[in-house]
Amino acid sequence: MLIGKVTGSLWSTRKDEKLNGITFLIVTVCTDETTHTQRSLVAGDIVGAGLGDLVLVTEGSAARVAASHPDVPLDAMIVGIIDSVDRGN
Amino acid sequence: MLIGKVTGSLWSTRKDEKLNGITFLIVTVCTDETTHTQRSLVAGDIVGAGLGDLVLVTEGSAARVAASHPDVPLDAMIVGIIDSVDRGN
Amino acid sequence: MLIGKVTGSLWSTRKDEKLNGITFLIVTVCTDETTHTQRSLVAGDIVGAGLGDLVLVTEGSAARVAASHPDVPLDAMIVGIIDSVDRGN
Amino acid sequence: MLIGKVTGSLWSTRKDEKLNGITFLIVTVCTDETTHTQRSLVAGDIVGAGLGDLVLVTEGSAARVAASHPDVPLDAMIVGIIDSVDRGN
Amino acid sequence: MLIGKVTGSLWSTRKDEKLNGITFLIVTVCTDETTHTQRSLVAGDIVGAGLGDLVLVTEGSAARVAASHPDVPLDAMIVGIIDSVDRGN
Repeated sequence: MLIGKVTGSLWSTRKDEKLNGITFLIVTVCTDETTHTQRSLVAGDIVGAGLGDLVLVTEGSAARVAASHPDVPLDAMIVGIIDSVDRGN
Repeated sequence: MLIGKVTGSLWSTRKDEKLNGITFLIVTVCTDETTHTQRSLVAGDIVGAGLGDLVLVTEGSAARVAASHPDVPLDAMIVGIIDSVDRGN
Repeated sequence: MLIGKVTGSLWSTRKDEKLNGITFLIVTVCTDETTHTQRSLVAGDIVGAGLGDLVLVTEGSAARVAASHPDVPLDAMIVGIIDSVDRGN
Repeated sequence: MLIGKVTGSLWSTRKDEKLNGITFLIVTVCTDETTHTQRSLVAGDIVGAGLGDLVLVTEGSAARVAASHPDVPLDAMIVGIIDSVDRGN
Repeated sequence: MLIGKVTGSLWSTRKDEKLNGITFLIVTVCTDETTHTQRSLVAGDIVGAGLGDLVLVTEGSAARVAASHPDVPLDAMIVGIIDSVDRGN
């Protein structure tokens, strides 16, 4: 999974109807809890994440497993809002 | 998923016949709605996207789920035309 | 999918027998029809591509779908020879 | 698979309930047993790895196979703690 | 698939028991038969590859197909030892 920060959302009216009802959030991928990378992706959301939240994103076929629906053509899903990160030092 | 811009299309006569009827669009992957990356890919299209459209692309096995057909050997599919992006500021 | 150029082929006698009969072509991944990247991969071929051909490559589980055989341990397959690319300008 | 070093752990209360009971460890991906890359990921853990351990990480659908549960939306799992690496020189 | 060179091996006693009996080889990914990249990975081996061998590696779910066992949590497998590469010039 990836650590990411929610940095936006997007709307798409003309889309695959199997995606109806899905919230699309834009997530900037982080190397750790404070460092952004150049990479961003669009993920579905099933935990109610909001702008600025640090989130856990799962990718690939696991995204459909998270959606509990094999026919939702997602390849990334936010599966958790991160409370805290422990670096053990 | 990825945000991308449609920057071309391609034709292939000598191809896997399981791809017959599929439109192949060339998509330049974007970091956000205005910034292109160096990466581009070829995606199928089921929403009628056109040159210059900002689109939502799903990759991997999700592309076949979008095609609603397990035997179409696609690994990327345009699943939405993006209306707007909200950065919350 | 990826746009690539066939830049070689390879032979492997000591291999998984489930790959017997598969042609292995080396493909340099292109950003577009004229620009090569540093990345290259090995793909199976079911359309009879040759050295120098511009080809369409599908990756991941879609490669086995293209092979029409779930037990062929391929993760990349050439699924089309590209006739032309239209950039719409 | 990847060689990585466990460099932290994270907590998420508001998460997909199918992830309940999973330990989330932050793993910095290594090029070899001594060289870290810039890339890090979050993996589940089924072998009891701890901070500083050199571990073997499997990604994609193999992570759910490791979890022995098709409905756990993981895309990375620690499947071994590395005892030693032999470079044969 | 990838072209790679076997550059080491590793041992893991505390591991997922579904990996018991698997040989773990460290493979440096090559751009071509003579040029190494910075990337390395750990792959299972079913063809008896050894240190210094130029090998063909398959990734993702194809690795389990190569293992002929759906429950082996591998995401990379050496599926051939490369005899020769032909660049056609």
